[in-house]
Amino acid sequence: MSQILTFLGKGGTGRSTLAVAAARAAAQQGRRVLLVGHQAGPGLEMLLGGIPLSGDPVTIAANLSVVQLRTTQLLEQNWTAAKELEAQYVRTPFFREIYGQELGVLPGMDQALALEALRRYDASGQYDCILYDGPGDLTTLRAFGIPEVASWYWRRASKAFLGSDLAKTLRPFAEPLLRSVSNVEFASLEDLPDRMGGMTNILEQGRQAIADPRRVLVHLVTTLDPIAIQTARYLWGSAQMVGLTVGGLWVTPIGSAEVPAAEFAPLTVRALPTRQGSDWSGLEAAVGGMFTVPDVPPPLAIDEGSRTVKLFIPGFTKAQIELSQSGPELTITAGDQRRNLFLPPSLAGRQVTGAKFQEPFLLISFG
Amino acid sequence: MSQILTFLGKGGTGRSTLAVAAARAAAQQGRRVLLVGHQAGPGLEMLLGGIPLSGDPVTIAANLSVVQLRTTQLLEQNWTAAKELEAQYVRTPFFREIYGQELGVLPGMDQALALEALRRYDASGQYDCILYDGPGDLTTLRAFGIPEVASWYWRRASKAFLGSDLAKTLRPFAEPLLRSVSNVEFASLEDLPDRMGGMTNILEQGRQAIADPRRVLVHLVTTLDPIAIQTARYLWGSAQMVGLTVGGLWVTPIGSAEVPAAEFAPLTVRALPTRQGSDWSGLEAAVGGMFTVPDVPPPLAIDEGSRTVKLFIPGFTKAQIELSQSGPELTITAGDQRRNLFLPPSLAGRQVTGAKFQEPFLLISFG
Repeated sequence: MSQILTFLGKGGTGRSTLAVAAARAAAQQGRRVLLVGHQAGPGLEMLLGGIPLSGDPVTIAANLSVVQLRTTQLLEQNWTAAKELEAQYVRTPFFREIYGQELGVLPGMDQALALEALRRYDASGQYDCILYDGPGDLTTLRAFGIPEVASWYWRRASKAFLGSDLAKTLRPFAEPLLRSVSNVEFASLEDLPDRMGGMTNILEQGRQAIADPRRVLVHLVTTLDPIAIQTARYLWGSAQMVGLTVGGLWVTPIGSAEVPAAEFAPLTVRALPTRQGSDWSGLEAAVGGMFTVPDVPPPLAIDEGSRTVKLFIPGFTKAQIELSQSGPELTITAGDQRRNLFLPPSLAGRQVTGAKFQEPFLLISFG
Repeated sequence: MSQILTFLGKGGTGRSTLAVAAARAAAQQGRRVLLVGHQAGPGLEMLLGGIPLSGDPVTIAANLSVVQLRTTQLLEQNWTAAKELEAQYVRTPFFREIYGQELGVLPGMDQALALEALRRYDASGQYDCILYDGPGDLTTLRAFGIPEVASWYWRRASKAFLGSDLAKTLRPFAEPLLRSVSNVEFASLEDLPDRMGGMTNILEQGRQAIADPRRVLVHLVTTLDPIAIQTARYLWGSAQMVGLTVGGLWVTPIGSAEVPAAEFAPLTVRALPTRQGSDWSGLEAAVGGMFTVPDVPPPLAIDEGSRTVKLFIPGFTKAQIELSQSGPELTITAGDQRRNLFLPPSLAGRQVTGAKFQEPFLLISFG
């Protein structure tokens, strides 16, 4: 298992430069490093001095490999895997009529396939750390939010559907229909979800990894431009809403504003030197401690004893936060993100009796 | 109908600044303008001097309204519409068990809902021009690619499915099952697609608008940083692969490299002045002609007379381009994008006899 690092911040603040510096430094310290590029265009190749990159990892220095993700290539690879799954489960597969080389890219595929690629590299055991240089904005957080959000949709939609009149109407057709098209052995419809448990396990493993800073850690990057500073703050709160821990704020010395360190407490704020042409040594020396788990509040803390749920959501005002309860779930909206919390049994049946937002904490209490 | 403009380029090159300047200038010339913000964080609000923005258009000056898209809000609005559609088509709807305020955001939803919002603002007839300040990278192009790519998936998957053994097995169940759950009157399964033609019409209208520079036009933005310049070139070629026309390249005066104008021929390359604090007049004067349809090759030209298909794909090398033919369709892959071309009847049955790439043109000839 690896530690995965990624970087959030406004475009042009030096995220890719920091990712390369951190990758080089970690490799020099003897860690087996994979740097994963996932931004449009030749930027990462140019930063690495023109080394040609491809959709498969290439070793560019001792302990350091680099891959430039290509969604069209990942789509082909995963389509082949989907056809194998279909052949395993479906008696008369029809995916085979459609070729991986034809598949166009729809929105969302970049993120879903990138997360799957990170999962595979992590599971390979070949790397101690994986640095993901992605778009670094909400698009990246949507990707890391897939396990929790997709689990919610699976849980919520199947519950709503199985309890509906529509399901009752379809039921008589379902069993004979499934038996006629699928190879899956099942006693009754009820034990189907377990027979196909693979997907939900993968999502749960992903959710747990993302919630554990030893496994997945995020760093904020800014310049001394006021908009870049406030965008970093916004992304800091947005990262918590996905369950990610933020390790610190790194400041690229461009611009003239002051970074209000108090607005980023308790994060460490570190100034980066300017890179001198192809001499990375100054930056490599400055990025020490990047993999260390920071001493910061967890994004989410559930205390069954005091019957409270505490969310750490810096960077947002009270007006930007909404809370609602529906059955065993709490829904929190902050900025442009929504988090559905599945409460433990001891809290699931209880009514929310109070919710207080004193930045950066939202404290919810139960009767 | 409006003209929609959007901006592509590396982060930090001044895309939002250019969008604001173009919106202000157009409004001063008497056009009814909507500026649509779709980047994470408070950047657009700060650029506009701290005017609070929301998910609904606010008028900030004569002829000028601004909206900051929020996916969580668009998701709620579109979920309400989906429930109405479900109630119209499905005898026992079950979506009503799931509330819009609960819906989490999965990757792809930002782009699909943003495109739908642009479509609605365009169809409202309230705006002469709409400026979309989005992520400005492949994510934005994936959104504008939805009509063509989604149409392909609908066409290809339904053809493969309807011709499969799986469909033959399901057929006996399908008709009674559909009659028991849906309100749609249909004589036989064959006339269902027409009964539900709405979606394919919307996609085709979208595809045609995106292919027409009077309706949708893109501008590239760079600084004088080598990586920003090459990223602009990459996005220029990528835009063609989505059928978008690029109007020109705008250069923000940061950095010291030279813009190789020859590498961007035949685009006009224009230098932007630096904004002096809150004085926008210099920039407003510099952005004249932004809405003009440029004299550049179309992304795609099909000549049935000479039996050739010509694609304009600047910014890519021969090694980065793949071509394959399958039945009535051509598939072209360039960079990290794939385009499936549905050939007119006169070419659909013919074999490709030659394909020549002389940058920036790919010329395909048929027997």
